[in-house]
Amino acid sequence: MRITNYFLPILKENPQGAEITSHKLMIRSGMIRQQNSGIYSWLPLGLKVLKKIENLVREEMNKAGALEILMPCIQPAELWKESGRYDVYGKEMLRIEDRHENALLFGPTNEEVVTDIFRNNVKSYKELPKTLYQIQWKFRDEIRPRFGVMRGREFYMKDAYSFDIDEKKAEESYDNMFRAYLNLFKRIGLLAIPVRADTGPIGGNLSHEFHIIANTGESNIFYDKAIEDEVMKDSIDVNFLKTTYAMADDMHEEAKCKIPKERLKHHKSIEVGHIFCFGTKYTKAMNADVMDREGKPQHPYCGSYGIGVSRLVGAIIESSHDNAGIIWPKAIAPFAASLINVLANDAECTNACDAIYKRLSDLGIEILYDDSKASAGQKFSTHDLIGIPHQIIVGSKFLKFNKVELKDRQTNAIIELDIEEVITHLS
Amino acid sequence: MRITNYFLPILKENPQGAEITSHKLMIRSGMIRQQNSGIYSWLPLGLKVLKKIENLVREEMNKAGALEILMPCIQPAELWKESGRYDVYGKEMLRIEDRHENALLFGPTNEEVVTDIFRNNVKSYKELPKTLYQIQWKFRDEIRPRFGVMRGREFYMKDAYSFDIDEKKAEESYDNMFRAYLNLFKRIGLLAIPVRADTGPIGGNLSHEFHIIANTGESNIFYDKAIEDEVMKDSIDVNFLKTTYAMADDMHEEAKCKIPKERLKHHKSIEVGHIFCFGTKYTKAMNADVMDREGKPQHPYCGSYGIGVSRLVGAIIESSHDNAGIIWPKAIAPFAASLINVLANDAECTNACDAIYKRLSDLGIEILYDDSKASAGQKFSTHDLIGIPHQIIVGSKFLKFNKVELKDRQTNAIIELDIEEVITHLS
Repeated sequence: MRITNYFLPILKENPQGAEITSHKLMIRSGMIRQQNSGIYSWLPLGLKVLKKIENLVREEMNKAGALEILMPCIQPAELWKESGRYDVYGKEMLRIEDRHENALLFGPTNEEVVTDIFRNNVKSYKELPKTLYQIQWKFRDEIRPRFGVMRGREFYMKDAYSFDIDEKKAEESYDNMFRAYLNLFKRIGLLAIPVRADTGPIGGNLSHEFHIIANTGESNIFYDKAIEDEVMKDSIDVNFLKTTYAMADDMHEEAKCKIPKERLKHHKSIEVGHIFCFGTKYTKAMNADVMDREGKPQHPYCGSYGIGVSRLVGAIIESSHDNAGIIWPKAIAPFAASLINVLANDAECTNACDAIYKRLSDLGIEILYDDSKASAGQKFSTHDLIGIPHQIIVGSKFLKFNKVELKDRQTNAIIELDIEEVITHLS
Repeated sequence: MRITNYFLPILKENPQGAEITSHKLMIRSGMIRQQNSGIYSWLPLGLKVLKKIENLVREEMNKAGALEILMPCIQPAELWKESGRYDVYGKEMLRIEDRHENALLFGPTNEEVVTDIFRNNVKSYKELPKTLYQIQWKFRDEIRPRFGVMRGREFYMKDAYSFDIDEKKAEESYDNMFRAYLNLFKRIGLLAIPVRADTGPIGGNLSHEFHIIANTGESNIFYDKAIEDEVMKDSIDVNFLKTTYAMADDMHEEAKCKIPKERLKHHKSIEVGHIFCFGTKYTKAMNADVMDREGKPQHPYCGSYGIGVSRLVGAIIESSHDNAGIIWPKAIAPFAASLINVLANDAECTNACDAIYKRLSDLGIEILYDDSKASAGQKFSTHDLIGIPHQIIVGSKFLKFNKVELKDRQTNAIIELDIEEVITHLS
């Protein structure tokens, strides 16, 4: 993409009202714009990252055998009255009346709708286990939205729901999602720590949150150091992770924590996923059943599994940035490399850049080509800000020595290469 | 995908309340389920088709140089008050109040939000032309939703918006989208006819609708036969299409129609796209301007361009089905082939199916493998119903002659092949 054809409104100053780093950087780098309190438009650079995360989530869900569906944003209130959550959910639920005065709402979560789909379409234990998921916009009318997409009102979330014939099978489905979550975070390039968590309004008594470590995080987690090693293994032992001490703040009790001090880790963190095993809470309340082996109706045992896809964009920035801007992990970077023409008025430099751009594009490598007339300094600060993993810098060294510079945004190390070497390096 | 692991709730009977073919077939084939009047959940088979159409739309928009963004579902009422459309839009707009009593709405279209993004982020004529698009859920509170996803309340739409410095350039952007639409429909495998149309509440005086021919369509179109030939050409002459007689019903006037009878075509049809060139209507009302060449502020000239992505799913079925069910065009079929094990209790048949499934899957070909214990008759009617382009049928002919049958869902022709030939045929 040539930057002169792109839509990348960069801000030099920190925007007013943005308290935390990711919020500031997402606005400054032209990733998002606020439309209303806690409600954002995603501009091209931000949307590219959001879609890359979405696609990785989809791939890992499919690999784990979950089936993608899509439930509507707008749901009938009736279903929530059946489950008993319509009154208890409070003002966080965006309640709506249509032209015929029917009570509707913008879904904050989807246990009710998915249980409705299940009860109308699944009849026998033979069709189980079944895990359905969607990636869809949700709305929670937070009293004080803040931190940009980290605590927005309209947010993008992957939510999965498992249905099993008994408690033991339900825990297998839970473990399956547990493993899929760790595979996903590893693939994105994040160290995610699973911790025991409170179940809150979803219900049940088995629940884990997945946290990534960030000094600016709102949460605190306490865990045995052994967890860090286990989650990075190729083949993860979920049982080890479930039985080793790891707690969200509200679950941590010093008295009950038996880990030796030198192994107890305590970090500020950001929650990026939350999974629940809540048994028959919704299938009972909503009268969803299947025939079991004996031909008797049986309420399936369920779990639900959330990942904040839009929240992850902010969380990744919180855990990966420096003073100059964002540092994207390669797996979800909006482009593979920036190509910076430092001397855009020089024909030789421009020809070289055009050639590099064409060759890398032909190889299917996504390049953001800065072909603008901005100053060298402005270009350098823009590309440091937007944090694409590699910068190919073409300027006076090319004219003098036929060398281009390749900068690694992670280490800020620069190496000098000729054009062929750059192509090889990136492909 | 093995059908025993899939979620494909097939109905044998036509559902109550479904009036038209596509609605009946989408329910019966387990593509969608209604959650509320005009509001649907998309089950795995339906979502696969929706996503395939979405991806083709995205590719053609990107090829045409449009930039993808994503605007929120929930919008502030203020912007619509600025444009003057808040009061005129009527009850079709889903109006919402949040916990702080702010007036919000679920966007039925996005001229206001995109103009707001534009005015806050684009300052100079040098940044033009710019066409921004999104693929997002919208809501129109239809008084009587019907015809399934063809006239739903919550619907999936691609909407693009162009910004240009003058009227002439704006028409170039319009022509560019005009061409992209025809490329898209051709790629899906549809004959789409562009006709002059009324601009309605969007405004302006240049507007075209794109219709596909279907006997069950609600619209009528009148056009010169030459249009049909032109739209199928590799290089389309947009000017020819814009100046040759082609009218939606409300624009057709017999007195003004000078085409000889033998060339005048009249068909029932379904509208699947609508494009508008409306000049400065919104940029003036919302005070969006850029500096022109002389350094003077200038309201950009705009157009907007819609395609009903969820509506297309229904429209394609209306134009492509037979008594047995859906016939998907290959470009958007949910799977490339059904693989039907007719003798699922026979080990030899099952081994052959497993091997075919593995080989085709390894080649990246998407197969729906019917490994269930259902009867042969039930399997045949299911796969005719869901309309995947090819059916690979493995049964008694395999046991006797080592032959499998390959059925073409379009022609219903069956050929007998050995396994190697089937693999070659499909890859």
